[in-house]
Amino acid sequence: MEIAHALNRIPSSYIREILAAASDKNVISLAGGLPDEQTFPIELMKPALERLSQMPEVFQYGATAGYGPLIQHLCERFALPETHTVMMATGSQQGLDLIARAYINPGDRVVMEAPSYLGAMQVFGLAQAEIVGVSQNEQGPDLAELELCFKTQTPKMFYAVPDFHNPTGVCWSLETRKQVAKLCYQYDVTLIEDAPYRELRFTGTMLPMASEFCLDKAIVLRSFSKIASPGLRLGAVSGPRELIDPMVKVKQGADLHSSVPMQALLLGLLENSGFDQHIATIRALYQGRYQALFDALDAQLPSPCRVYPVDGGMFVWVELPSCDTFALAKSLLANGVAVVPSPVFYPNPNEASSALRLNFTNAQPEELVEAVSRLAQGLKQAIV
Amino acid sequence: MEIAHALNRIPSSYIREILAAASDKNVISLAGGLPDEQTFPIELMKPALERLSQMPEVFQYGATAGYGPLIQHLCERFALPETHTVMMATGSQQGLDLIARAYINPGDRVVMEAPSYLGAMQVFGLAQAEIVGVSQNEQGPDLAELELCFKTQTPKMFYAVPDFHNPTGVCWSLETRKQVAKLCYQYDVTLIEDAPYRELRFTGTMLPMASEFCLDKAIVLRSFSKIASPGLRLGAVSGPRELIDPMVKVKQGADLHSSVPMQALLLGLLENSGFDQHIATIRALYQGRYQALFDALDAQLPSPCRVYPVDGGMFVWVELPSCDTFALAKSLLANGVAVVPSPVFYPNPNEASSALRLNFTNAQPEELVEAVSRLAQGLKQAIV
Repeated sequence: MEIAHALNRIPSSYIREILAAASDKNVISLAGGLPDEQTFPIELMKPALERLSQMPEVFQYGATAGYGPLIQHLCERFALPETHTVMMATGSQQGLDLIARAYINPGDRVVMEAPSYLGAMQVFGLAQAEIVGVSQNEQGPDLAELELCFKTQTPKMFYAVPDFHNPTGVCWSLETRKQVAKLCYQYDVTLIEDAPYRELRFTGTMLPMASEFCLDKAIVLRSFSKIASPGLRLGAVSGPRELIDPMVKVKQGADLHSSVPMQALLLGLLENSGFDQHIATIRALYQGRYQALFDALDAQLPSPCRVYPVDGGMFVWVELPSCDTFALAKSLLANGVAVVPSPVFYPNPNEASSALRLNFTNAQPEELVEAVSRLAQGLKQAIV
Repeated sequence: MEIAHALNRIPSSYIREILAAASDKNVISLAGGLPDEQTFPIELMKPALERLSQMPEVFQYGATAGYGPLIQHLCERFALPETHTVMMATGSQQGLDLIARAYINPGDRVVMEAPSYLGAMQVFGLAQAEIVGVSQNEQGPDLAELELCFKTQTPKMFYAVPDFHNPTGVCWSLETRKQVAKLCYQYDVTLIEDAPYRELRFTGTMLPMASEFCLDKAIVLRSFSKIASPGLRLGAVSGPRELIDPMVKVKQGADLHSSVPMQALLLGLLENSGFDQHIATIRALYQGRYQALFDALDAQLPSPCRVYPVDGGMFVWVELPSCDTFALAKSLLANGVAVVPSPVFYPNPNEASSALRLNFTNAQPEELVEAVSRLAQGLKQAIV
């Protein structure tokens, strides 16, 4: 049976290949995007896990929008106005997919920063959107370029990760958040704010979400994969009711609803008095790893390469002199370190500037330091 | 933001409305399709539930195709040949959605019996397939009509529920299974065999699946909602590897993977030595309810109405003299009994013959008997 034409638009899964190679135990992998298993708050979830066997109702079919008590908790936690609501998704990845399915017609334009999150490009590619890339600077998207794009391309939505962007780690400035919101109003573009790393800030002050400046023109995706656990597969989508309702309609066909025992478990965790301390612990752990990685990079990277400091998240971005980053990643793998080359993060890989994404959340500091030695050695051989 | 054009093809959710009305406690609802909460094997799941807190690995990101040990267990349980594989889905509803997304281009034809499962019509409607209905008799689909349809319409797939069809309860004869498989080979049509009710047989002998006669041209959907619990949201899709692989690719964008703790829990249940007895208990429970409903219908239905006996499943189908079944369902609701009128189950509601679907799995025998009294009274007033 021939596959649907839309599948031909899914970018090739280079990352899967590199992740498979990276499972070799002689390789230190900075290629993935996994939180550390040791951060999973299993002890904090235990009481809720044990309560499940006394809750037959959570094993029945549930509401498509999500488990009532959890929805209510999240509406309060996120301080949503009356006109807004939350829908639970099977991971925020599903939230993104439901946005694409509810709103995108083939050929509709979706703007995102280039580079951008691979999973978003997959989803919008499958929906046959035309993805338009806008370049990014240290403050966020280039605002002049973004405005020109909004004006001339009439996109339907702008997909963005303002807090600790994947892959670059960039955190938008307050001014950029305000300006983007203003442009969304001005040009009637819906902001899709994806915030999976927002809670993983280890320095500086938390900024308002960009969507807080354009509440009625934004859909927000929040993940519980980094602060609870990815295996649960739970994310929350919030926004004005009239924007969420069509997604609920699609979700009914997509999977009827997300696992109710998992939603009850998540609620138990969020209500646990130890949860805030748990997040503080994760932040401290990742900060230590980031610092080990950054210091090693700062000391050892050959001079034409450049790494930017980050205030949180899971990734740093290493800019390189122009080179074949795929060949480089392959030679680094042979040298015992796995990284992801920049072109996989670009809607148009030919426009990619040479860079590597490094993850620091799933390796010990001493492994990170050793990985940087291998990386620096490989870089010196290959490009300097 | 304007919704995608494809959403306009989702049939209106009349069932949702009637289910909402049916929550009135003065109404006995035969309108839903829920298993009885008391059948959920929570005691049998308890050991596995308690083990989860010792399994941090199931809280990490998992493989898109599913939890390895569960996949292996299911390949053996389903006695799949080497060339076949299993993919776990977030409910078999997601399996259906992934089939549609992986294979359907707008305008592709999908054949199904008319009447048919509403959730399948939603999914294929959203994929913008052209749904072609084939009439059904007591043996299954009308084979002459099916062949003519395969020959003249060149459909891509035939979606079918051979065991205790939703909504009619029909179970295909062995001969029909063989003939359908032969036609699928002959006309190069992929059989999508949806088997959520297969284990719910309470009389007669289990027949081979239709797909067993066309293994290489079939994808099979199995649900754990009726034999384990719907809240878990787990279904299994099986078939030749080359048919499953594109669905895994779509699932990566759709939700990355299904909940791993839920998959580990399901595996624990399936491996529990009490599981077979548990299924026998459900069957006996539902048989008692079915018998109460059928006997009451047989005794009290006014003569131009007709109910067909079933050997399993969750539904019976009551054929009526031609009438406005929506108006009838509404008046029955006022009379204290909720049922689903036939047109909602037809790809083309105008072609529906007048009938009602009655569910017998989620009410006590005495409620079923009372519901039939109200139904018979309403029918006598309305149509006889």
